[in-house]
Formats: sequence, C-alpha cells, structure tokens
Amino acid sequence: MLYARAVHAKAIQLAKIALEITAAAGSGHPTSAASLAHLVTVLMYDHMRYDPDAPDARGSDRLVLSEGHACPIVYAAAADIGIRIGQGPSRRMTLEDATRLRQIDSEVDGHPNPAEGFPFFPAATGSLGQGLSIAAGLALASRLDCGDARMFCIIGDGESREGQIQEALDFILEHRAYGVCPIFNCNGYGQTGEISDLQSPDSMAARLETSGFDVRLIDGHDPTSIRSALDAHARVATTLDARPIAIVARTVKGWGSPSLQDRNLHGKAITGDALTRALEELDDTARRLDARWAVGELRIPTPRTKQAPRTVRHEDLPSFREALERYGDDGWDNADTLATRKAYGVALRALGHVDPRVVALDGDVGNSTYSELFADDPDLEGRFFECRIAEQNMMSCAVGLWKGGYVPFASTFGKFVTRAYDQIEMAMVSRAAIKMVGSHCGVSLAADGPSQMALPDVAFFRSISATRNRAGAPLCYVLQPADARAAYELTLAMARHDGPCYMRTVRPDVPILPNGDGVRFELGGHRVVRTGEDALIVASGYMVHEAVKALEILAKHGVRPTLVDLYSLPFDEEAIAELARDNNGLVLSVEDNYGGGIGSAIAEVVTERALPVRARRLHVRRVPKSGRDPDDVLAALSLSADDIARECMELAKADQR
Amino acid sequence: MLYARAVHAKAIQLAKIALEITAAAGSGHPTSAASLAHLVTVLMYDHMRYDPDAPDARGSDRLVLSEGHACPIVYAAAADIGIRIGQGPSRRMTLEDATRLRQIDSEVDGHPNPAEGFPFFPAATGSLGQGLSIAAGLALASRLDCGDARMFCIIGDGESREGQIQEALDFILEHRAYGVCPIFNCNGYGQTGEISDLQSPDSMAARLETSGFDVRLIDGHDPTSIRSALDAHARVATTLDARPIAIVARTVKGWGSPSLQDRNLHGKAITGDALTRALEELDDTARRLDARWAVGELRIPTPRTKQAPRTVRHEDLPSFREALERYGDDGWDNADTLATRKAYGVALRALGHVDPRVVALDGDVGNSTYSELFADDPDLEGRFFECRIAEQNMMSCAVGLWKGGYVPFASTFGKFVTRAYDQIEMAMVSRAAIKMVGSHCGVSLAADGPSQMALPDVAFFRSISATRNRAGAPLCYVLQPADARAAYELTLAMARHDGPCYMRTVRPDVPILPNGDGVRFELGGHRVVRTGEDALIVASGYMVHEAVKALEILAKHGVRPTLVDLYSLPFDEEAIAELARDNNGLVLSVEDNYGGGIGSAIAEVVTERALPVRARRLHVRRVPKSGRDPDDVLAALSLSADDIARECMELAKADQR
Repeated sequence: MLYARAVHAKAIQLAKIALEITAAAGSGHPTSAASLAHLVTVLMYDHMRYDPDAPDARGSDRLVLSEGHACPIVYAAAADIGIRIGQGPSRRMTLEDATRLRQIDSEVDGHPNPAEGFPFFPAATGSLGQGLSIAAGLALASRLDCGDARMFCIIGDGESREGQIQEALDFILEHRAYGVCPIFNCNGYGQTGEISDLQSPDSMAARLETSGFDVRLIDGHDPTSIRSALDAHARVATTLDARPIAIVARTVKGWGSPSLQDRNLHGKAITGDALTRALEELDDTARRLDARWAVGELRIPTPRTKQAPRTVRHEDLPSFREALERYGDDGWDNADTLATRKAYGVALRALGHVDPRVVALDGDVGNSTYSELFADDPDLEGRFFECRIAEQNMMSCAVGLWKGGYVPFASTFGKFVTRAYDQIEMAMVSRAAIKMVGSHCGVSLAADGPSQMALPDVAFFRSISATRNRAGAPLCYVLQPADARAAYELTLAMARHDGPCYMRTVRPDVPILPNGDGVRFELGGHRVVRTGEDALIVASGYMVHEAVKALEILAKHGVRPTLVDLYSLPFDEEAIAELARDNNGLVLSVEDNYGGGIGSAIAEVVTERALPVRARRLHVRRVPKSGRDPDDVLAALSLSADDIARECMELAKADQR
Repeated sequence: MLYARAVHAKAIQLAKIALEITAAAGSGHPTSAASLAHLVTVLMYDHMRYDPDAPDARGSDRLVLSEGHACPIVYAAAADIGIRIGQGPSRRMTLEDATRLRQIDSEVDGHPNPAEGFPFFPAATGSLGQGLSIAAGLALASRLDCGDARMFCIIGDGESREGQIQEALDFILEHRAYGVCPIFNCNGYGQTGEISDLQSPDSMAARLETSGFDVRLIDGHDPTSIRSALDAHARVATTLDARPIAIVARTVKGWGSPSLQDRNLHGKAITGDALTRALEELDDTARRLDARWAVGELRIPTPRTKQAPRTVRHEDLPSFREALERYGDDGWDNADTLATRKAYGVALRALGHVDPRVVALDGDVGNSTYSELFADDPDLEGRFFECRIAEQNMMSCAVGLWKGGYVPFASTFGKFVTRAYDQIEMAMVSRAAIKMVGSHCGVSLAADGPSQMALPDVAFFRSISATRNRAGAPLCYVLQPADARAAYELTLAMARHDGPCYMRTVRPDVPILPNGDGVRFELGGHRVVRTGEDALIVASGYMVHEAVKALEILAKHGVRPTLVDLYSLPFDEEAIAELARDNNGLVLSVEDNYGGGIGSAIAEVVTERALPVRARRLHVRRVPKSGRDPDDVLAALSLSADDIARECMELAKADQR
C-alpha cells in the first residue's frame, strides 16, 4: 500500500507538471502524457537502472518513448529527479528547464530529441512506429557488450497500426532480443478519434500471444500491477529460452482529470480556467487515492556498468588487393573487373577483423549486397543481423546499435533503402552515425526492371548531405564509387568517419580503373580520371565507365575533355569550379538516377560564383524498364557512351553559337 | 479427378514455359514461378472472371502479384491464353512474346509493369509488401462501383515480413474490404535461405485467425483444395458480416522438378543441361500425376461488367471565396489570413460535390490536414477512407483506387508521406494519377520539432518531376502554394490533371496575397508577386511571406527586387530565365526545406543557358529544432525576413566585386 500511495503521489505530481509545461509552451500533448503517469513513475523512479548524472552511460537501462508526443511526462520526471541535460557542459535539469519546453534555445524539444541536449532519450522519436526497432538495436548492442541492460519501449495503441511495429516484434522474437520490454499504452484514442477495435487491449494481447509473447495485460494506473509486470520482464530479459514478455496497459487519456476525458483532447495544451480545473481534479484524485509520497519508498537502482574492452586496429587493415585475396572469392584478387558491391563485402569483412565495433545488418539480400562475406565469416559470429524483408526495422535497429556503441552497416538494394527514408530522416535528427549501403543502384541492373532500381536516392540523400552538423561539417555523405578499389577504400572511410553515410553500389562487374593506385579515396573527394581541356565531364558510379568509353569516341573527333569521377557529395567545390574554368567553362554531368544529384550540385557551385559556364545534365528522364543488358537500358534512356559523346559535342557547339 | 488432372497438366505446361522464358532471358525467378503453377492455373483458367481481350476492363476480377518476381508463371498463362498486351494497338500475347521476357522492347518486363504494355496486372509490383494494399484499393473502388469484382493478391511468405502486409490486413478487416482474397504462397524460401519460423504456414495461419480471418490452410499444389478455398472466398466476398477468408498455401519452390528443389535457387535462370533435366522432371511429374489437359474442363468465367454512370461537373465548382463560405468553417470566407491546409480541405470538399471520382484517404490526422471537411460531409459518405497510422498502406491503397477508376487524394503530414516514398516510386512506375498532399511541411510548424517536419521532400519529388511521361509531359508535379487561394486553385488543378501530383501545405495561417485575384494558378505556373529590377527573389510556400517582409526591409535601403512565387515544379524555364536576365542576373531562392528544390532547379536553368547569373540559395542547412513560434525557428536557421534581405544585398555586393 505504501508503494502504491507513493507511486500515485508521484504520478499525480508529474501529470501536473506535464499540464503546466505544455500550458507554458502553448502546445503539446498533456493528456497523452497523463496516460503514462504511472508507467513512467514506476520506470524512472523505481525500476530502471540508470544514473541521473550519466543518463547516456553504456550499460544503463534505457527508455525509448516511441510515442514521442507523450514526452512531457518524461520531462516532468527528469526535472523532478534532476537528470542531467545540456550539450557540452551539462547540468541537472530543473522545473524551470521543463517550463522552457519547446523554446528555441531549450534542450527540451517538442518531441524526444537527444541531440539538442536531452541525453536520457537514446534516440529521436515522434514519427511513429520506430521506437521498438531502436530498442531492439540497443538490446543487441547490450548483448554484444555482455551486458544485462533492459530497453523499455512505450508504444501507443494507435501507433501500433504502423507496420514497422510488427516488423520489430518479429525481429525481437527471431533474435531473442528479450532485453526489450515492449509496453503498449492503450489509452483508446488517436488524434482524430477512438482507436480501431483491432488495436484494443484485448486484440493486441491476443495478437502478441499468438506471435509468441507472454503478455501481461494490466491496468496501467495500478502501481503494483505495473511493478509485477516489469519484474516478470526482468526475470526473462537475459534468457534465450523463456517466452518473452510484452506489457499491454489499459490507460486513460487525461488520467486524473475527468474534465480532460470527456472528449478527445489529443495534442491540445490546457490553459486558463481549464488548466486550473484540471489541476484541482488531480488534487482531488490524490485525496481519493490517499496518494502520499514517501522518501525512500522508490529508489532508482544503479546500473551494472560493464563494457567489454575493445581494441580498434584500423592500421592493420589490408590493402585493396590483399583484402581481395584474403576475404574475397576465388579469382577476385587478380580481377580486372569487379562489382563495387563485391568490394563492399570484402571491405566490410576486413573491417570486421580489425574493428570490433563494426556490425552488419541486411534484409535477406546478403548474397546480392555481398554482406554475406561478413555474415558467413566464423570469426565474426554474432555480429551479423539478418533482418529479413523488413527494411524499416533494419534501419531503426541500426540506430539502436549505434547508440549502443557500435558502427552498424545496413545494406539492401538501394531501391529498398527507400522503404526506410522516414526512419533515415529520424536517424539524422538523432545524428546517428549509421552506414547505409544500397546495392543495385541506378539502371545498370537492367533485367529486373524499375521495381528494383534506386533512382531518386541521390536527390534525397544530397539534400540531407547539404545540412551541416554543429561542427560545421557535412551531416551526411553520399558516396558513389565507380570501381571496386573506390568501393573498398570508401567503405573503410565510412567506418572511420563519425557520422552517417550512404553508399551506392551497382550490380555489374565494372573495370577497376587503371589510375586508381595512386589515388586516395576519401569523404568529400573526387578523382580526375583523364585530364583534357575541351570540356569537363563529371560522372559518378557506373556512369564513369560509360564516360570513359565516350572519351574514346570523342578522341576520334579530336575532342579531349577532362573526366572527373565525382564519387562524393558534398565535394571540394573550389576544385570543381577550377576544373570547370580550366575546361572552357563547359560541363557535362552524367548520372544514372532521376537527377538532383551531382549535376545539380555543380550548377549550384557555378551559379554561386557566377562562373561563365554552360552545363548539360544527362540523367534518367523517364521511368526505365527491363532490358537484358545494361547497354540496352542505357541506350533506351539516351545515356550510352554514344549519347554522352554526342551531348559533349553539342555542348561545345551550343557555346559557339 | 478430371479437374485435378487438367489443372496439373496446365500447371506443368506453365512451369515449363516459365523455365524456358527465364532461360531465354538469362535471368528471372523460375522456381518461385513454379511454386505458383497450380494457384495461377486455377485462378487464370477457371476462377477469375475476366475477358482476355480486355484484361483491364472495369468490373473484372484482378490479380495483384505482390511477389512480383514470380511473374513468369503469369506470363506463361497469358501467352497460352492469348491475353491482350501492348501499348496503344494491342494484340493477343503469344509464346514468342513471352520468350522476349526482359528485352528492352518487350511488353513483358522483369517484374509486373503494366505501363509497358501488360495490362493484365493492375499495378507495378516487385518492391515487396505493397500488393495487398493495392488490392484493397481496387476492392474499395469496386464496391463504390456497386460491383462484385474480387481482387486476388498473391503474397510471398518471406514478403509477409514487410510491415505493410500487416497494415493492409488491418485495413481490409476494418473497412470490410472482403473482396480482397489474400493468398500467401508459403514455399519456405527467401532469397538467402529458409523463411523464419514466424512466417511458417502454421504461424501465418494462426496470426491471421487471431486477427479475424477465416483461414484456409491448403496444399497449394492440390487443385481441388485450391478451388474450394477460392469458392469459400467467393461466398463471403460481397458480404459485410461474414469472417473474411484468407488462404495460406503450402507450396514447393521449384515444384515438379526435384533437381531444382535440392537447394535454394532463388532468382536463377536454369539453362543448358540443368534446364533439360528440369523439363524432363516436369514430364515425369505429369506422368506420375496422370496429368491430362481436357478442353472445356477449365473455362474463364465472364465478368459482370457494370459501372455506375458518373457525371463530372468541374464547371460547377465554386470560386475560392464562394467555396470558403459554402464549405469552410465560420469566418473563413472573410479571412485575410488562412492556412493553405484549410484551403485544401475546402477544395477537396468542393471537388467531392462535383466529381464523383474524387475520394479521400488520411492517416489519422484529418483534423490537421483538413481532409476532415470531406470526411465529415454527409453528402460524401462512403468516399473517405480512414487509414489510421499506416501511411504505406494508404499510399498503395490510393494506387488501387486510381486503377479502379477513382481520383484519390491521400493526405497526412508531409513528414509522414516520407514513410511511403518506396510506395510512391512504385506508383510512378504504374503511372498512377494519385494526388498526395503533405501538410505541416517545412519548418513553420515550429513547436513540434523536426520529427514532424518535411524537409527533404522537395528534393525527392523534384527528381521524380524531372521525368517525363510518354507524351513528353512531366510525370509528376510538385506544388507549393503560398496562400489559401493558390492552395484552393491548385487542388482543383490536381483533380483535373491526369497524373500524379504532390502538394505541400503548411500549418500556420498565412496572408492571402492581395494580387491573387487576377492570377491563374496552374500546374507548371508561377506568379510574380512584385515587379522590381534590382534582383530576383524566388520563393515558395510559407517562405513567400517572409520574402514579402524582406521586400519592405529592402525598400528602406532603396533595393527593389522582383519577387516570384514559384509554386510549381517543373515550371516555365524560359520565363524564369527571362526574369533572371531582367533583374541584373541576381537570383536569391528562399526555401524551407533541405535544398535540392527550386534553388537547384533555377541553377540548372541558368547553367543550361550559360546565363550570366549569380545565385544564392537560402534553405534549411542544419537539422531544425522546436521553437514556440515560426519566427524563432526561421531566425535560428537564418531564414528570417532579415536574413533574406541581408542575403539579397550581399548578393548585389558580391556581384560588384
């Protein structure tokens, strides 16, 4: 009884703070927050093992608030407990900090946003359905650390309609990531009205049971029920053979304040008289429940901080050719042509041997992306996670692994990376240094047709790569290696870089360019493949090879352009501007995507400097279709070597007119 | 017995054709195809009601092959039956057509791709997990037509791991779209290996039963079991009170050819001796099963073609102000400021009244996007589909509604549209004229923070808008109305246009620009807000209003730029080039996204023409955070009116240096 009274008292205190800080902000979700008052109280004051002075410490239990909009209740607790906040120099959070909710200079953002200075949350959430996958990644990281940390994830009932939740549940079951404790908050209301019967507590419990969970269907405002459900989870969290626990909690939106329950007040700050009334009602509720805070009744347990020591030895990485011999298939070490996807697999495996932080994920296409070279290496056992055909979960799971201290490489077809663009955007809000690798990009895969081709991906990622992190460096790099050597070196560069990257590989074997030996491949770099003077051809990935063929055609016409392999976005703008100047101010860009990529980037460089440049852009300008051979598809899209040569000559002619 | 023998004979014939045509193509998925030999035979020769001479006719039963890679089996049947193929002039498909599988000039693409001339498939598939949602949209369209057509959807077992499948199942249950017959093809193998136990036939059946389906767990190679399961579906397809049927079929990858079953041959064409052997084994299987084709034993039933006559009266659409009065909330008709999202809702409702093809979908945010104005109108009952928090299903479902003859408007926050970018790309492969509306775009929503802000969306959609359809017109338009009048007119324009569009609305009320009355808003258009001479400021959406404020600041400094509201991508390039020339060749673009939008588009226009232009681009260059007011957020991102004015003056100065 003492326990219940203490939890009620604290829950009511937090619900009041949540009301007050959202009122101060003029927006927010106080009724959603109130529905979590007891769950968050038991978790943050009594159950989770963490250090309020180091909420981001490895080895701690973590709370992923997948229904991010309910965050005011966590902010209330953090302010009351005095959890550390702040970027750089940190301080103990106060009620005053909480009252600055949603201010432009506040660490307390509208939705969970650790990068702005609230490290208690392991990742940004608020675009719904992603938290459970993040928690799964955190749990895998903890297991790799030989830790026993538990990852609590609170998911809304309406949110459970997102397919990614099912993807995450399946992933947790298959990988026995039982350190994750899924808690479904069934308050019965979404934004526009009542939740579907399909997401009722009973229905959710039945589905979870059928899937394989041992479900605790509890009253989410009953302290002892909450505690016993969480204790049940504690007992199975580090086992591999028990049935995993999931908690389905019936809760009340606007708990404790009847005036907030008579209609759906989703996402509305309560102000003025309505606020006064709601606060009074919470006091009434406290009296009714005989709520009484007792110092010492609830106590935050200490985490068992433990972390395997890890030695990173990138200096031991083999050279490109050595790596092919050691980690590639037969014959690769002497190959003249090799697919960039194969070199990626070799590099990933090589990294695995020298960098224990490197882990890999794939979506049932590891024999296409060549992540299988990593997966099948017995020395790397336990560090590959087969995510099956569920890319959204894969990408959010990678965020969890990153936050858990690992360097995750997540690969699938570039086309299917698209499936996770929202998850990737959220990863960028978290500043998660995940390494994304899309294979079969562009049109060179040919025969399978457009449903397997990544085409707007460069435009999407370029826009993100145009943002800067706090240090002024690019937040994200887009990498398009033209040959296997570049793919190998850039994969290593991705691992060294403490930030997100997207690399684009292609299906066909392509020549390893002869002048690669002396070239250093690095983020932000480019390579001059051929120095000419008549024009500048800038290409990336597979199209560099078409451009090389075009050079031969052009040579017959006495035209000698410079060819640049612009494998990185962003790139050295001054250097490219200089090359444009040195080549008659004529620039032809060649890409196998829908545009918005390197051609646009160069146009921006040119216009920013008001350079006298004439530019043309070759890219995919209609929806492609299947062709049996890459050449057929390129010709149909006017992207063949002949097309490149012709465009280059027309560019020069246009300039003379 | 006769029936079974006939089905076996035909199934074996089709499996052989599938082997041969993938061998001819040199790639493809013959073993997946063979696992569907019986299911497809029973469906296409005996059960589905369609006309091989008009496979795309409204009122027909449809087959959505969600596991698109298995398409060779359908091509085999289509060639055998002589189903019409071809763009423009059509012809009956022959075996020779099938043998041209995956050729660049073939209608028979690597994955289902109706736009290339194979109209039997209602939509492009192959990026997995999307078909069931498309089938659901088709079923809703049929119901709106008062038709009884049934939509068969074949889903792979590995594919079922995609969360969108669960989203679609929930949607089917909630909307009682029982015209959909989900058929799970459990052949036990994915690309890299065995399917997870979680997707075993028993596990799938149990999950479906728990969700509310009446499951038929059958041997997918037993003709009579298949027939009776499909007959069971026929009995409930048009009811609203029965339990819906789902079929889970145990099948064999590489059925009929033991040599193809001894290892996982996913996605490999079988050639040479292996092909000879596999074909011989199929003959052996035929003998063992006493397979015998009997003319007349299987017969394709005729569809009950019926379609409600529909009168479209766009000429009766009210004017902007009339519409606000008739369909808006109190006071909107006289408002000076109004959010573009509100005008969207008004326009959608107005369209509903004059265009019975217009239907609407939303993802539990109809009170934010204002699609609720349509949803709540009793005259439009039955034409709004609440998709809840499951955006992937929503977008694919819209594709189905489009293919069923409707004009679907699908809305949610622009941020959450991102969730469906892969589905949208597939919709573009289908050339589906879906209308996508993202609200709360950019940073002006402020308080909720970056998890709710659409930021790379313009770059993504611009790259698609750079592609052309067969007629040479833009495949897709991106629309960014700056005020309520523009949003109203552009919503109407979207409905008139027979192609996909993405419109971006914003949260705050914004001024209705005074000079809007005489302006026509159209796809591809722009409006000159203020004519000056010193520089050209080009803005879109919310940022037009910041730019207007900047004009006032600049006027105090004696600087008079021209301001263009560039609300459409693509746009009239010549007109914009002319404006740049007329304004000293100084261009400043102003956007509330991550770039790659109108600023990049203008840079391309300029460099293509080698115009002497100096351009600067203002856009979001770091991950935003919450602020209580749009002005706070814009100032923090250096995008305020002051920033615009300062950049404009610096642009002029830079040019003088």
